[in-house]
Amino acid sequence: MTKIERFKIGPRMSRVVTYNSVVYLAGITADDLSEGVAGQMTQVLRNADQMLSTAGTNRARLLMATIWLRDISDFDQMNAVWESWIDPANPPARATAECKLANAEILVEVILQAAL
Amino acid sequence: MTKIERFKIGPRMSRVVTYNSVVYLAGITADDLSEGVAGQMTQVLRNADQMLSTAGTNRARLLMATIWLRDISDFDQMNAVWESWIDPANPPARATAECKLANAEILVEVILQAAL
Amino acid sequence: MTKIERFKIGPRMSRVVTYNSVVYLAGITADDLSEGVAGQMTQVLRNADQMLSTAGTNRARLLMATIWLRDISDFDQMNAVWESWIDPANPPARATAECKLANAEILVEVILQAAL
Repeated sequence: MTKIERFKIGPRMSRVVTYNSVVYLAGITADDLSEGVAGQMTQVLRNADQMLSTAGTNRARLLMATIWLRDISDFDQMNAVWESWIDPANPPARATAECKLANAEILVEVILQAAL
Repeated sequence: MTKIERFKIGPRMSRVVTYNSVVYLAGITADDLSEGVAGQMTQVLRNADQMLSTAGTNRARLLMATIWLRDISDFDQMNAVWESWIDPANPPARATAECKLANAEILVEVILQAAL
Repeated sequence: MTKIERFKIGPRMSRVVTYNSVVYLAGITADDLSEGVAGQMTQVLRNADQMLSTAGTNRARLLMATIWLRDISDFDQMNAVWESWIDPANPPARATAECKLANAEILVEVILQAAL
């Protein structure tokens, strides 16, 4: 499969891009930014499920996750949500760092790559 | 295609690496760091065009873009340049964060992956 | 090769994931965080060699490196270790930024992708 496919195309990015049996997801943030980090992470991972489904794959086929936290002291709260979401037999590689994100209300952003 | 090819090889990194029908570009910064964020972003994307061309591809085949801004308040100015550069029918997945970069004059750095 | 293989699986991530002739490594940090940035980087790259070996590849087949430094003023010290480690004929693409990491003692974290 060498054709590029793009889904949820906006003026700035595609939310989902597939190519060569891999799906690249745009950075995922919560829709309701009034929630705390655990609530935002729950929303992010719900969105991730939808985006992975759009590409024809699912959370058991994740390859790599990059997680950006606005405040690294939210690490444990974020992890609790993460660990209850991933397929325990099939977790991706992962890296986490603290970064300010597009606006001050965004507490967590997750970037995923998965196998089709 | 499983051979790795490297272009613009320096002592620290290759600027362009191709493998398995994907090109990985090193983080791209502006050459003239006296410019503001819009000017730097314009330079970055001009460099991106050259690097993509070196690999035999182009901006319509981008898969993923990671954008690091020194100051996230430059988000709108960066986006204006970005949105006028990308192929509107074929934008990549994208994620943006605020990070300090290799020196204080670098206002934006862009990391791209594209299909060959 | 389209099967996903995972190695060093923990409750939160796999340290090594292979798919489609590419290996994705989790963010690598030093085991002994009492060391300075040069010592931590040396440990990180020793760990990288082991993880690449687990996947059946090596440092001459790196595609992309992302390096996060807690303090960007450690850039030159980190680079000295990096440049003595990489295969000079085969350096990967690379990008470096300053980010706070999972705890305050972690001075450097390295994320690698390599060809199998």
